Amino acid sequence: MNIAIKNILAVLPGETTDAPQQVKKTDLYIVGSRIAAIGEAPADFKAEKTIDGTDKLVIPGLINAHTHSYMAFMRNCADDLSFMDWLFGRVDPIEQKMTDEDAYWGACLAILEMMKSGTTCFNDMQMNIMQTTRAVKESGMRAVICRGLIGSGDNEAGRIRLDQTYAERDAFRDCDRLTFRLGPHAPYTCDEAFLKIVAKEAERENMGIHMHLSESVTEIENCKKDYGCTPIELAERTGLFARPFIAAHCVQITESDMDILAKHGVSVVTNPASNMKLGNGFAPVPQMMAKGINVCIGTDGAASNNALNLIHEMSLVTLIHKGTQRSPQCVSAEEAFRMATINGAKALSLDAETGSIEVGKKADLAILDLKRPSMWPVNNPIAALSYSATGDEVNTVIIDGELTLEDRRVLTMDEERIYFETAKIMERIG
Amino acid sequence: MNIAIKNILAVLPGETTDAPQQVKKTDLYIVGSRIAAIGEAPADFKAEKTIDGTDKLVIPGLINAHTHSYMAFMRNCADDLSFMDWLFGRVDPIEQKMTDEDAYWGACLAILEMMKSGTTCFNDMQMNIMQTTRAVKESGMRAVICRGLIGSGDNEAGRIRLDQTYAERDAFRDCDRLTFRLGPHAPYTCDEAFLKIVAKEAERENMGIHMHLSESVTEIENCKKDYGCTPIELAERTGLFARPFIAAHCVQITESDMDILAKHGVSVVTNPASNMKLGNGFAPVPQMMAKGINVCIGTDGAASNNALNLIHEMSLVTLIHKGTQRSPQCVSAEEAFRMATINGAKALSLDAETGSIEVGKKADLAILDLKRPSMWPVNNPIAALSYSATGDEVNTVIIDGELTLEDRRVLTMDEERIYFETAKIMERIG
Repeated sequence: MNIAIKNILAVLPGETTDAPQQVKKTDLYIVGSRIAAIGEAPADFKAEKTIDGTDKLVIPGLINAHTHSYMAFMRNCADDLSFMDWLFGRVDPIEQKMTDEDAYWGACLAILEMMKSGTTCFNDMQMNIMQTTRAVKESGMRAVICRGLIGSGDNEAGRIRLDQTYAERDAFRDCDRLTFRLGPHAPYTCDEAFLKIVAKEAERENMGIHMHLSESVTEIENCKKDYGCTPIELAERTGLFARPFIAAHCVQITESDMDILAKHGVSVVTNPASNMKLGNGFAPVPQMMAKGINVCIGTDGAASNNALNLIHEMSLVTLIHKGTQRSPQCVSAEEAFRMATINGAKALSLDAETGSIEVGKKADLAILDLKRPSMWPVNNPIAALSYSATGDEVNTVIIDGELTLEDRRVLTMDEERIYFETAKIMERIG
Repeated sequence: MNIAIKNILAVLPGETTDAPQQVKKTDLYIVGSRIAAIGEAPADFKAEKTIDGTDKLVIPGLINAHTHSYMAFMRNCADDLSFMDWLFGRVDPIEQKMTDEDAYWGACLAILEMMKSGTTCFNDMQMNIMQTTRAVKESGMRAVICRGLIGSGDNEAGRIRLDQTYAERDAFRDCDRLTFRLGPHAPYTCDEAFLKIVAKEAERENMGIHMHLSESVTEIENCKKDYGCTPIELAERTGLFARPFIAAHCVQITESDMDILAKHGVSVVTNPASNMKLGNGFAPVPQMMAKGINVCIGTDGAASNNALNLIHEMSLVTLIHKGTQRSPQCVSAEEAFRMATINGAKALSLDAETGSIEVGKKADLAILDLKRPSMWPVNNPIAALSYSATGDEVNTVIIDGELTLEDRRVLTMDEERIYFETAKIMERIG
């Protein structure tokens, strides 16, 4: 779509890679799916739609680098419980009763929440193939989809799930907002032999990998008992880090683990709400940043967060490390902004296409109202995103050059139907 | 005003003081400023206004137990700085240039933000008398006002500020939504002799006290150097704890400090965002709760938070202690709900009047939309408040029986004028 956004405060990349973001009043021009110009209109530009940017802020759409979208209907159904009661008492019994159709409506609710809080791309690990992908395709979202792999050696279960990944990828080749990764679930659900197979398959299929790593103390203890090494060391020795790799969590990691992650260019997704909520603690984000590791942000699933709101996670990632390090300068709003945008794009191997407002990139944008108590006065919009915004300031969203949210109303999905269907699911199986 | 709220999901007190809150569908009836009935309409009730509660949740209005409302226009103007650069480089120079009128508009912006996120009562320490009070009176808010006292022995500065407290109290006797406390600022701005005077004045005037205590490591070190004791011990020996006392912060406290607080029934206001943001760390909230201390929640001022959104603080208070204690059961959503409502009312000596939905209490209520991705499905509304809500779900607010916010629009203040005036202030002195 050809869209002009006039007279808007925009967060643009700094002059060099390391320079702070620039915040300035400008005009943006979108042609088809891409940003065609910033400032001056391109020659022969004819707007099909003009957005008045007065008292508005445009940012690159946020990137939620780790979630399980289908779980959205489990929001607030399993809280303040021990991990075992959470998993085996509540989440697992619901998962056992879930249908594919339930997973689809869960993904729809998740996409609705993410879009309304400024997220335009997410990285999903899911269990019901063709469902999240279907919701992504219909809603206009951008996503990286990983079918969760669980396997032991060359057994059939692992093989089936790998084949499902390829089937899903092949079925959605017509939607270029979708890409696919292999999703070995975790060191405690995939054994070493299976992880080696996954590494080889990823090489052969030229795919990236997305895996939970080093989330809890129990995981580390069991990995040491079973393999005599940390989960990070296990992932390295199985060859997984030879591929573009996204490690979710990395809460319980050593100095030497961080060196391994840095050496292989592994991207780490920190999930602060989920890590605290399940009692796993605080990931060593400042230390990983100091090692030059690409850190980005995820929400995890709604059974353990319970929101899929990246603005909330930005607030957490900037605040909690100032607390643990006793330093008001630790993890700045500028750093959180990068984590939630360009760092997420890098992690997903999508940084040539999205993650910043630049000519030639996909038009993945969130437009926020500034005339809200949380954003006013407009002293420092980047600080506002981390320290005072709620996410509800998001007024308009554009993904791949298409308007998906306007005046807070989603244009691509039936919001009432999503509420109706997800309520029914929990009445049936909750 | 006579208001009927029909068919609404309500959070009501448990059957006993310690029992969990009850969440149930009911009708509420307001007569004048008070809740007249829950369930059945009172005899001869005639509604002047009927609110349809379908897909809505009513909770007691939240209580922000520590803030500096006038600072709201400093939101996002001083972030990611060392404490000294924050205070002397940014906040103090702006304060020096502030007029009384600036303080008034700052308080208006703060009240707007609090009301829109469900707060119906706040406890303020302010520096420009007659300004916050004026904004409270006009806006329909409820507040406890403490003129910040700074003094050394029986010097004139301390005396003047005490007299200003009384003058302000006397000037606003006609507004029963306002009460007043003495507000000795902190152990580093009030010496021991002055604190003893404040304790005597509070006794004579029959007033409660509100003071910053044990916020930073530097404060503790200096107090030990100057007085050979902790700030809590200093407050005890000056007689301040003989009065109803609200201690803001209490981050850096010992086991023995906690015993002193418990012994005197001191209420502690935890300010999680501010404490992390300024690098002071995490208050030992679970430990204080275990000692039976009444813990409630505050936002602190917008120069150090930067939001005045109690829903956000509830999220922080439930998450961060699960992180520090590595326990998913630590500080439950139910406990955070009490902290943000009835515990705040107790701290302010207002629990006979507000802090819960009970017949005979003031009608101080926040009504939230449930059909929002953050609240849906309606699995556990109390968990939703802490773990997925943003505060923007607040649709309607009633304070002292009067509608102050309806369909997200404030009825008692000129929102556009507040934005206009606060932007002008920062252009002039920011």
